[in-house]
Amino acid sequence: MEPTLARSVRADADGVHILDRRRFPFERVWVRCATAAEVAKAIADMVTQSSGPYFAALQAMVLSARAAAELPDPHAALSADAALLIAARPTNDHLAKAVAFVLDATAGLRGDDLVAAAERGAEAGDTAYRLRSRALGEHTAALLADGQRVLTHCWADLYLTETVAAARRAGKTLAFVCTETRPYLQGARLTAETLAEMGVDTTLITDGMGASVLAGRQVDVLLTAADRVAMDGSVVNKVGTLGLAVSAHAFGVPYLAQVQTPDRGAATGADIPIEHRDGDDVLHTLGARTASTRVRGHYPAFDVTPPRFVTTVVTDRGPFAPEALTRYWEGRE
Amino acid sequence: MEPTLARSVRADADGVHILDRRRFPFERVWVRCATAAEVAKAIADMVTQSSGPYFAALQAMVLSARAAAELPDPHAALSADAALLIAARPTNDHLAKAVAFVLDATAGLRGDDLVAAAERGAEAGDTAYRLRSRALGEHTAALLADGQRVLTHCWADLYLTETVAAARRAGKTLAFVCTETRPYLQGARLTAETLAEMGVDTTLITDGMGASVLAGRQVDVLLTAADRVAMDGSVVNKVGTLGLAVSAHAFGVPYLAQVQTPDRGAATGADIPIEHRDGDDVLHTLGARTASTRVRGHYPAFDVTPPRFVTTVVTDRGPFAPEALTRYWEGRE
Repeated sequence: MEPTLARSVRADADGVHILDRRRFPFERVWVRCATAAEVAKAIADMVTQSSGPYFAALQAMVLSARAAAELPDPHAALSADAALLIAARPTNDHLAKAVAFVLDATAGLRGDDLVAAAERGAEAGDTAYRLRSRALGEHTAALLADGQRVLTHCWADLYLTETVAAARRAGKTLAFVCTETRPYLQGARLTAETLAEMGVDTTLITDGMGASVLAGRQVDVLLTAADRVAMDGSVVNKVGTLGLAVSAHAFGVPYLAQVQTPDRGAATGADIPIEHRDGDDVLHTLGARTASTRVRGHYPAFDVTPPRFVTTVVTDRGPFAPEALTRYWEGRE
Repeated sequence: MEPTLARSVRADADGVHILDRRRFPFERVWVRCATAAEVAKAIADMVTQSSGPYFAALQAMVLSARAAAELPDPHAALSADAALLIAARPTNDHLAKAVAFVLDATAGLRGDDLVAAAERGAEAGDTAYRLRSRALGEHTAALLADGQRVLTHCWADLYLTETVAAARRAGKTLAFVCTETRPYLQGARLTAETLAEMGVDTTLITDGMGASVLAGRQVDVLLTAADRVAMDGSVVNKVGTLGLAVSAHAFGVPYLAQVQTPDRGAATGADIPIEHRDGDDVLHTLGARTASTRVRGHYPAFDVTPPRFVTTVVTDRGPFAPEALTRYWEGRE
């Protein structure tokens, strides 16, 4: 059975429908977006996250193509929507990649041809992402042994579910420990529920307990997705990853970071923008105030793990030592 | 103004009244305990924590003395209650110290003499703890510079408030970053509210953000209480401390651990029992389910920070390098 979150963006004549990950799994509510701008707002508002914004942006660009097809300059409108979507979340480069699929497919077209090309571009982008995630899962599962216990953080979406599926195909059973991942609790809600859907043995801990289970060797490996990986091997991922990676290093547990493609445009971690979200989110839990009313919050959404704390960067082309990432493109475009 | 939590255990003719820290600061509810056993249960149920159980146990022993005064063997009853109280939370040794004050004061007595001695013993225990906390605050403040930003974890109670007060007396202004400290959110509720009461600049982060603020040098020092410190300098404190200490070490930020007295009975961290609490607590936030209903939780309440990650252990007799703790007793009882 495919996990619920593997298909959490749907497009139809009404618009783009996005499963609201802020409420999953307690409620299954779909947010309808009639325009690309509405999709951009939904992404900025965290209706969807992890792989979700990529799929939503593909379909948002189809909405944009439909709206722009008969305009005097449809490509100006498409570009404006693309910029809106890319700006919705600055750290991960999935959004830029998604809109590029549609922009490339539609170059120079207009009218019905433009719309049909946008739909084909979105479909190609969807397929490419799923194939790359599947390859990533295969390469990751090859590094894991039957019976291993895996600590993960936040919600790695298709990277995680493809890893579990690939391990299973190879006859390996994995168990997971996942962090709850405050403030949005992606680990407690998305990762835990999805692993349960897949029949995987899963234990939840709070974000402060990672070092304890690493030091006690209650896990064998730390595995997270990466929102972006710089060419020096710096891993940018959900805030909290850094502390886990540093602890894994201190206690001799390998850290595997998954990314489809390292970012050739970022020489070092310092070249990747870190999104800061509203500090008020730290003061609340699923909408309820859970902190003193007299304090302010601070919410860096991502952190940068220096390469010395990273054991292996797993990509769609296989594993690389963090200092050897330039080899990813050797002999390729 | 003395912070609210500095006086959160009250004794009167009705029994021992304990401010419910599970609900503070949103509600100010006092739990009345008519017997020592009820106090022990309140402590086990987290009605109070940090320094609170110490004060509650002192007064619980007074209740025990009143109930036992006319029994044929009052000391058997006192000892039984003492054992109940000590067993309520196994990791911190405050409870054993509190009951010892009253047991020592009442040895060989009975009737009204027993009760009066118990009251004097409890008062002496109360005073001793406050004086030691004040000394601890003075010694800690001496290590901090005006304008420093301090990262703290969980709720260090009188150790923290005395540090702030001592710094202020020395003309130093400190700012704090505190972790929310899941699952009970002591940092978000108790630390944040109390620092606000004291007029201290305070920023709240989630438990996963500590490494980010340490790596970014947004704090100058990591400061926590310790529930227990072994003679090898291992620091046992609220789970989450270890990850912060490891990250502080990795990024060159000093870590100061506060304890009134290192534990002569524990040669190493392995000699200190680590309490595990109900894993269901990880699945809830202030009573509401916040995790998938299909996952189990894991809740080690404390972790052990090896001495290589500790810069200084601050005691009521001043600061010590973790490897030099045996000097604490040199020339003293």
